[in-house]
Amino acid sequence: MVTPRRSGQERIPPHPDLRTIGLQQVLEALVDPVRRQIVSVLHAAEQDLNCGAIELPVSKSTATHHFHVLREAGLIRQHYVGTSRMNGLRREEFDEAFPGLLQAVVGRQ
Amino acid sequence: MVTPRRSGQERIPPHPDLRTIGLQQVLEALVDPVRRQIVSVLHAAEQDLNCGAIELPVSKSTATHHFHVLREAGLIRQHYVGTSRMNGLRREEFDEAFPGLLQAVVGRQ
Repeated sequence: MVTPRRSGQERIPPHPDLRTIGLQQVLEALVDPVRRQIVSVLHAAEQDLNCGAIELPVSKSTATHHFHVLREAGLIRQHYVGTSRMNGLRREEFDEAFPGLLQAVVGRQ
Repeated sequence: MVTPRRSGQERIPPHPDLRTIGLQQVLEALVDPVRRQIVSVLHAAEQDLNCGAIELPVSKSTATHHFHVLREAGLIRQHYVGTSRMNGLRREEFDEAFPGLLQAVVGRQ
């Protein structure tokens, strides 16, 4: 039996609609300094980055967890390019849902 | 021996200089929904309120703890009027130290 090869699209769960995300979830995501570091790097980069391109003071599995929390809170969008999981800030959608919050938080480590 | 009666001023510890407060401490204060409720009520009131005037879904001692955390994070200023402990938002100072953050968080329960 052959297991069909899954595309990158299938490997990443759907991204939440930002209208379903509350401020509580967003603040719980942003209260962690490592997650704010990821958001700040993506904000400064102004392009999608793969997980490995963001230097973090935690193990790879912990980093994966932090990316997961950020995706669930509607802050980042993930997709695959080949075998690289790429991450981008959902900047415009997020700014619309939570005006001013991203700007108030990023770049203030 | 007579214990000198302490003035209201002496009963409240000094308030921190906002330049010594980091974003981490502020977000830890604001991540709690009861504390955001206090901040939102004070923001809407535009005047100092005593603790009892802010209806909260927690016990009095828990509420006192939340006011303490907010004071330590530089968000509120407390003083006594008679036996009432009054609370006011340190709005201008806070806005200067953390531009846009208060506006992004209040009124979004």
